[in-house]
Amino acid sequence: MTSSTSPTTAKVLAFDIFGTVVDWHTCIAREAEALSPGVDGSAFALAWRAGYQPAMRRVMSGELGWTLIDDLHRLILDDVLKTFGLHDLTETQKQHLNKAWHRLDPWPDAVAGLVRLKSRYTICTLSNGNIGLLTHMAKRAGLPWDCILSAEVFKAYKPDPATYLGVARVFDVSPGEVMLVAAHQEDLTAARACGLQTAYIERPAEFGAAHPKDVSPDPANNWHAEDLLNLADQLGC
Amino acid sequence: MTSSTSPTTAKVLAFDIFGTVVDWHTCIAREAEALSPGVDGSAFALAWRAGYQPAMRRVMSGELGWTLIDDLHRLILDDVLKTFGLHDLTETQKQHLNKAWHRLDPWPDAVAGLVRLKSRYTICTLSNGNIGLLTHMAKRAGLPWDCILSAEVFKAYKPDPATYLGVARVFDVSPGEVMLVAAHQEDLTAARACGLQTAYIERPAEFGAAHPKDVSPDPANNWHAEDLLNLADQLGC
Repeated sequence: MTSSTSPTTAKVLAFDIFGTVVDWHTCIAREAEALSPGVDGSAFALAWRAGYQPAMRRVMSGELGWTLIDDLHRLILDDVLKTFGLHDLTETQKQHLNKAWHRLDPWPDAVAGLVRLKSRYTICTLSNGNIGLLTHMAKRAGLPWDCILSAEVFKAYKPDPATYLGVARVFDVSPGEVMLVAAHQEDLTAARACGLQTAYIERPAEFGAAHPKDVSPDPANNWHAEDLLNLADQLGC
Repeated sequence: MTSSTSPTTAKVLAFDIFGTVVDWHTCIAREAEALSPGVDGSAFALAWRAGYQPAMRRVMSGELGWTLIDDLHRLILDDVLKTFGLHDLTETQKQHLNKAWHRLDPWPDAVAGLVRLKSRYTICTLSNGNIGLLTHMAKRAGLPWDCILSAEVFKAYKPDPATYLGVARVFDVSPGEVMLVAAHQEDLTAARACGLQTAYIERPAEFGAAHPKDVSPDPANNWHAEDLLNLADQLGC
């Protein structure tokens, strides 16, 4: 990794959420198992998440009109329930399970790391999750955002440039004064193409302990950190 | 006033900002006087604010394309500076003064009232101010929003129904589960027409001590409170 830019040149830190700030795998697996004892929660979580990118591509290609993640999650859930042979859930149970994405727990370092980063920078979400989902999650988990930004604000899903450049426009700063913080290289690559600074966060257990993720550094990123406390250390917070 | 609805039926409290949560008159007057000693700060603030509704009407009528409040404030400011004979400000000084709206102080009860209301409800802004402005203001003043919503999200200015109904849609609740909290009866009237609950906040000094505002109750509102601490009392927070 390079550290070619000084920490002080970024004014706004925009955070990816699912996997970067919160642990979707553990939480979705737990909720699925609670609702359907005997189900393989990890496999269920991975299957649900696997439908996420294809669903957003259907929106961005124009096949589907603008659709919030809550509604995309539900479309995918209905398929996953069939795949797993779970035909007995009531509509109320399905709606409750669909909102499990509002109830994801933060990684253990996240709240303390964000509090430190917030002391020096404006911190906001930049997630494909809808505003209501991100607000409920933040309120439950104590995530101290200065502002919740979402694909819903820009009517475009990451990696569309409208999302990364939208953050700069909202805060009336140049793209280079925004840093995307994410656990996914493809998100960071797209942000860099728009001129943003980028910080990679290792989340080796994002897909569960049984499926460790490659978290090797990409030298194209400005920063590479084990977690948000380590990023705060590096950024002098 | 009536209290026909129980406090617990609202899930989301959406707050008007300028005049309701922050004291624009005192702060704008102070900044104008600091920048141009000898100017009548109160008259300057009133003139600047008087341009606000007409400027938004130009956007909503289609005469202007979508324009953020920061940019409308600047259009109005350029006129007001001429009216007050202030021809000597540099571009940097004008830009700094224009962002005085980001630096407004909260009314003395606001932060403590919001902290209490947040313990029981989701609290968000619903302001014609742009997201960046509202975020900077909240960060500086310590306003503890769960979420910052703005005309910028809905691409429509209050009193357009898209703004009030947009809050309900964002949080996936019925309009009757949203309460608009504002110090302006016309804002509350428009919200009620969309099915929202309404709470009026007395801000008799909104236009300065020399221009006391009529704060008599309108029985059409569900709640009428002296300030946000009193609203918290009434809503059982």
